[in-house]
Amino acid sequence: MTSTKLFMSFKETNYQLAGHGTRNVGVLKTAFRDIEENLESDLYGEGKVIEEFQKKMAVLLGKESAVFFPSGTMAQQIALRIWCDEMGAAKVAYHPLSHLEIHEEDGLKKLHNIETILLADKTRVIELKDVEEMGENIACLLLELPQREIGGHLPSFETLEQISKLCREKGIKLHLDGARLLEVLPYYQKTAAEISALFDSVYMSFYKGVGGIAGAILAGNKDFIGQSKIWKRRYGGDLISLYPYILSADYYYEKRKNKMGQYYEAAKELAKLYNSCHDITTLPMIPVSNMFHVHFHHPKEKVEDALIQIHERTGVGISGYLREIDEHTCYFEVSLGDLYENVPKEMLNTLFQQLDEVMKQL
Amino acid sequence: MTSTKLFMSFKETNYQLAGHGTRNVGVLKTAFRDIEENLESDLYGEGKVIEEFQKKMAVLLGKESAVFFPSGTMAQQIALRIWCDEMGAAKVAYHPLSHLEIHEEDGLKKLHNIETILLADKTRVIELKDVEEMGENIACLLLELPQREIGGHLPSFETLEQISKLCREKGIKLHLDGARLLEVLPYYQKTAAEISALFDSVYMSFYKGVGGIAGAILAGNKDFIGQSKIWKRRYGGDLISLYPYILSADYYYEKRKNKMGQYYEAAKELAKLYNSCHDITTLPMIPVSNMFHVHFHHPKEKVEDALIQIHERTGVGISGYLREIDEHTCYFEVSLGDLYENVPKEMLNTLFQQLDEVMKQL
Repeated sequence: MTSTKLFMSFKETNYQLAGHGTRNVGVLKTAFRDIEENLESDLYGEGKVIEEFQKKMAVLLGKESAVFFPSGTMAQQIALRIWCDEMGAAKVAYHPLSHLEIHEEDGLKKLHNIETILLADKTRVIELKDVEEMGENIACLLLELPQREIGGHLPSFETLEQISKLCREKGIKLHLDGARLLEVLPYYQKTAAEISALFDSVYMSFYKGVGGIAGAILAGNKDFIGQSKIWKRRYGGDLISLYPYILSADYYYEKRKNKMGQYYEAAKELAKLYNSCHDITTLPMIPVSNMFHVHFHHPKEKVEDALIQIHERTGVGISGYLREIDEHTCYFEVSLGDLYENVPKEMLNTLFQQLDEVMKQL
Repeated sequence: MTSTKLFMSFKETNYQLAGHGTRNVGVLKTAFRDIEENLESDLYGEGKVIEEFQKKMAVLLGKESAVFFPSGTMAQQIALRIWCDEMGAAKVAYHPLSHLEIHEEDGLKKLHNIETILLADKTRVIELKDVEEMGENIACLLLELPQREIGGHLPSFETLEQISKLCREKGIKLHLDGARLLEVLPYYQKTAAEISALFDSVYMSFYKGVGGIAGAILAGNKDFIGQSKIWKRRYGGDLISLYPYILSADYYYEKRKNKMGQYYEAAKELAKLYNSCHDITTLPMIPVSNMFHVHFHHPKEKVEDALIQIHERTGVGISGYLREIDEHTCYFEVSLGDLYENVPKEMLNTLFQQLDEVMKQL
């Protein structure tokens, strides 16, 4: 019951610290406002709307070719399957908290019988030594940048280069789970193409930092993308019309592609404010993208009551949910977006003073 | 080159005989015109928008439960997989021209290792004797109503009842490929629920006769639908937001659900007009739904030239493409929709007089 109350109290706030705003029909209407009614639909993966966007994304990612998918889940399973077939080994390696391992009901295993090797552990990202020690017959290594489930950690760019070099030497394909690729560019001070160049295939999402409705791009060489399109048909992802996702992805990509630096700076500022509060820490302490996790070192129920109080008193929304880690700790995830800049600075200061005080009383 | 010319000549006509009109962004804009911006998105299969539509479709189809899918390809592979798992046999039976056999790049076989038994042949629908003789260890039989690739043929309702009874006796699951289920109701003079009652699971599409953007429903008992949702996640079909398809599906379903009888009558009328022309026959001769195929007993190139001539002379569009069957025969598919009633009767008569004459000269 408290969690519903927390959600409701969050919904009733006038300002929210994170995100781009509510996911509602307005997101679609805004994207389509200036699009002509007579613009023709894509048709089973063909037509101007889909082909032009795919070309644009291939250029962005510095790859020969790209294909639009309804979801990243579908795109990534397919990427790994193609590399496994090409390498003649049904085994891939990734982080224990990879999306494929924890959010896809074991699709990769159930649909493809692909064995998975888990590298590193739940507290850190994959480093060079993990790759050096990972054993034989692995067709593909997947790296997720940033590693979302640990708050959005990143390896150094040098580590990425070393891992890439090692994989090429060993004949292992390297795939980028770049769901939030644009969001890490300000930290690395690299272009999307410079990072993608280290990988054989790249996936990027359009509803994280970009804030579109849904959809993903998968990029790689021509042969790889040709095969991806066949698998997309097999999965039932080659819809007669994907334009509701494509055109909105393009709209929000254009709107926000140059705002990732702003979101990153906001994330660092906001994390600092959280870390200044009693019994609150962020993961990472200093964000390396627009995202981080906020950990409260108190039981979930108590923190819920505290957040509800703060929402009602200040009118500024912190979070609509909390997840329990153990009986002493809970957390929520933050992804900075358009909303942060709307919060008046003085409200922000009041908010964190009050949060600090409420936390001291728990 | 001629085929591009045919397509262009068709696009430039003022009236078209078949369909609901061009698949363009207007289809989306019309559906969303009266939907409030603050209506919240569905979220990974949950929320009012998706749950209410699923309930409505479960009621329509007379099943316990239903789940919305981005595509029928995904929905049907999953249905067959679930029945195979439940029956402990990785073997299904369907028509040699089933969508799964010819349009899905062998997804069912590649993703699930399910063996397929082909019943009947390419000239007719599956009859009771095919099911009686189909051999052992088949988990599920799929029937497609109408059988699209042969122009939209249907077995009699009595045959459906007999097949259903036999499958239940033999312990074989019966799945309905009802992509065009609404379109066959006027012929059978049955409700969707009365037909669905003969089947264990039912799929229906929203962009055929309904004319939505994309999307499908899968209906069955609660346990089956529960499993379908897990598989939908595995496939990457459990998108964060499916509302662009759901809300448009609902809009066009409401707009056209009572027009299927009108489309059916129009199909019979139009087929008669084609059959009155020299060297043209329709399949079926008398349609049993809103669809049929138009066969020309002349080489494709010659018929293309004839159709271009007719388009230019009359301003009424017959077809934008032709498919070759052999060097003496070609065809196109017709699905009657909203456009037919706009064509003035006198133009229709002139059109078919001219078509008859042009055909005589080939």
